[in-house]
Amino acid sequence: MAQNGLQANGNNKPREAATSPYASNDPNSNVSNFKIIESTLREGEQFANAFFTTEKKVGKYIGGKSTETNAKILTHVRCHMDDAKLAIDTGVDGLDVVIGTSSFLREFSHGKDMEYITKQAIEVITYIKSKGLEVRFSTEDSFRSDLVDLLSIYKAVDKIGVNRVGIADTVGCANPRQVYELVKTLRSVVSCDIECHFHNDTGCAIANAYAALEAGATHIDTSVLGIGERNGITPLGGLLARMYTADKDHVKTKYDLTKIREVENIVAEAVEVTVPFNNYITGYCAFTHKAGIHAKAILNNPSTYEILNPTDFGMTRYVSIGHRLTGWNAVKNRVEQLDLDLTDEDAKAVTAKIKELADVRPLSLDDVDVLLRSYHQAKADGVHTKFLEKIEKPEHITSISAEASA
Amino acid sequence: MAQNGLQANGNNKPREAATSPYASNDPNSNVSNFKIIESTLREGEQFANAFFTTEKKVGKYIGGKSTETNAKILTHVRCHMDDAKLAIDTGVDGLDVVIGTSSFLREFSHGKDMEYITKQAIEVITYIKSKGLEVRFSTEDSFRSDLVDLLSIYKAVDKIGVNRVGIADTVGCANPRQVYELVKTLRSVVSCDIECHFHNDTGCAIANAYAALEAGATHIDTSVLGIGERNGITPLGGLLARMYTADKDHVKTKYDLTKIREVENIVAEAVEVTVPFNNYITGYCAFTHKAGIHAKAILNNPSTYEILNPTDFGMTRYVSIGHRLTGWNAVKNRVEQLDLDLTDEDAKAVTAKIKELADVRPLSLDDVDVLLRSYHQAKADGVHTKFLEKIEKPEHITSISAEASA
Repeated sequence: MAQNGLQANGNNKPREAATSPYASNDPNSNVSNFKIIESTLREGEQFANAFFTTEKKVGKYIGGKSTETNAKILTHVRCHMDDAKLAIDTGVDGLDVVIGTSSFLREFSHGKDMEYITKQAIEVITYIKSKGLEVRFSTEDSFRSDLVDLLSIYKAVDKIGVNRVGIADTVGCANPRQVYELVKTLRSVVSCDIECHFHNDTGCAIANAYAALEAGATHIDTSVLGIGERNGITPLGGLLARMYTADKDHVKTKYDLTKIREVENIVAEAVEVTVPFNNYITGYCAFTHKAGIHAKAILNNPSTYEILNPTDFGMTRYVSIGHRLTGWNAVKNRVEQLDLDLTDEDAKAVTAKIKELADVRPLSLDDVDVLLRSYHQAKADGVHTKFLEKIEKPEHITSISAEASA
Repeated sequence: MAQNGLQANGNNKPREAATSPYASNDPNSNVSNFKIIESTLREGEQFANAFFTTEKKVGKYIGGKSTETNAKILTHVRCHMDDAKLAIDTGVDGLDVVIGTSSFLREFSHGKDMEYITKQAIEVITYIKSKGLEVRFSTEDSFRSDLVDLLSIYKAVDKIGVNRVGIADTVGCANPRQVYELVKTLRSVVSCDIECHFHNDTGCAIANAYAALEAGATHIDTSVLGIGERNGITPLGGLLARMYTADKDHVKTKYDLTKIREVENIVAEAVEVTVPFNNYITGYCAFTHKAGIHAKAILNNPSTYEILNPTDFGMTRYVSIGHRLTGWNAVKNRVEQLDLDLTDEDAKAVTAKIKELADVRPLSLDDVDVLLRSYHQAKADGVHTKFLEKIEKPEHITSISAEASA
């Protein structure tokens, strides 16, 4: 196998758990030891179209996942004593307290200064801990906050024993190298776990999550299909695709990847959206190969053009044939699947005809099969050249093939 | 404005063109000086559902874009003399020649060794240049190729005057820090332009493009809606959102961002897909704000929760009100839009009612408006408390409001 040869910054010694050549080599990396925070019911409810009834929440969704995981129930409240008390009364296992630290949020949202914020955070966290509950402290809009302010408050709450601190790219402005730098710095300042939350407005939510794990983050927030405020957050399926690529064995052992499609379908139905055509793993074209020049390699060894093995996700590969970019290797492969006795020259001749016809409209796999079977029959009758010549348009396939087979 | 305080590696002096605090500080960065290769008609045709007729290609699509750009026509062929000759005969402005250099492709696709590949590349490129055409040399599956092999062949083709070299993440396995390292190294080896092509199987196509530009890449391949082989490549709209966030002035000056939706609709129609619900910029929820605790800040200053200004993209912001996460600031804002004379206490009372009703089902904006107007009328009549009490279910709004206004 080729070595990539590209080393990330830091320690060059590969981690033991990292069996893939693309795995991270950072000393603090949690790429092979990450935890997922499932927040479809919290962030997801901020999706424009979400309206989770209690029945949907408890009955369908958690039910669907509980076969895989023993979920703890956390709730998400403002860093405010009144909110914290109300939340504790609901009987949750833990609280996430959150406050905005960017100048934007300090000016236009809550209007408080850093000294006040820090004092309040310590008071609220101490109270929650006194009740024996888990507590996470998170800032909002962390990537537009002053670095020294951020590190100061995280250090203060770490010192009083917060279980986890959270960084949030609330507006979706962060990019991966910026995330890496912030998390790496934070990792050197606090000893507790680090959770990261990334919005996807500028298309980096998955990559930012990955960079955060490389730098030492421990937990990543996801939601099914990425649903959340505006265009959402890191999608569960997309993150699993990324992590699988980094450490396939770890991800396959930890998660039942074949459930992704079912969980996505449940959530898509609940919030009345269609799974995007280009969705990670489960989009209808995720494992469809079309380019003719790729077909030979894909048929020889799918790893040539696939980083995700579809069967690991309960999906199947499809090599599309009936279009004008088709190649004779793909057609020959279909000949073999149909168990027809045709030579390479035959496959090339039929491929040329498919390309010609598909210039008018794409052919279905049925069209291609009829064409191949009838060509096979025509060849037995010694009239295969004539047969191909007679088919001038896609709509001739059925009638002329019927003739040939008669 | 808060300083982010996080510096990427390298030169800390911000580039003059970089006006945003999130812009890259890398010495080779082209974040404020990038070019887009529009490949919807090439990569896009490899999308499972794509079937571009000549009419669609020339008439609709290029037509739609030609108001913005003077496009050069390049074609994409295997690095092979026969292919190159055929392509030149079509009268194109330039050729992209491509060959696989990963061990996967060398073993399972073309079966050639690096010495042969290099010799052939030099021969083909020299021929194309002798015809006075532009030529780009690209490797396929670059991120699973041996680094020394890659650098050797790129150096050889740069030396004979290739116009541009291309890196391709053909299988979608690359991650941003790996991309940054490879492009930075390549930038130090060749003097020609560097084009990058990223598939999106593991959700990093936009972030990888950004990291490549930070490291000194000059051109990024995109397609409209990201359509391409499997789940596609870097989407044009998503990349523009990312680059806008890095250097708004540059992107706004160079591109007419208000055309994105129209171009996406044309392509979506041509390939018969629906624009994903969570699409960058144009997805129907991209600028919808729902969380109650965000509403006050969004109404005070949209930058608090928006990194993209919707008007720059010809879109509009929508603050959703009629759901159970609503906040009284959002309701108060609607009161002002309707020019009703209600106090903060009134707004809070109606908000409590909206939350109660929306626990049954979400209310439309019409429902909310009727509720507010009728409350206003009821208040004038001195019966507003009674009015709210009578409305126990969402379906009471219309009938009881009609009563109140009678």
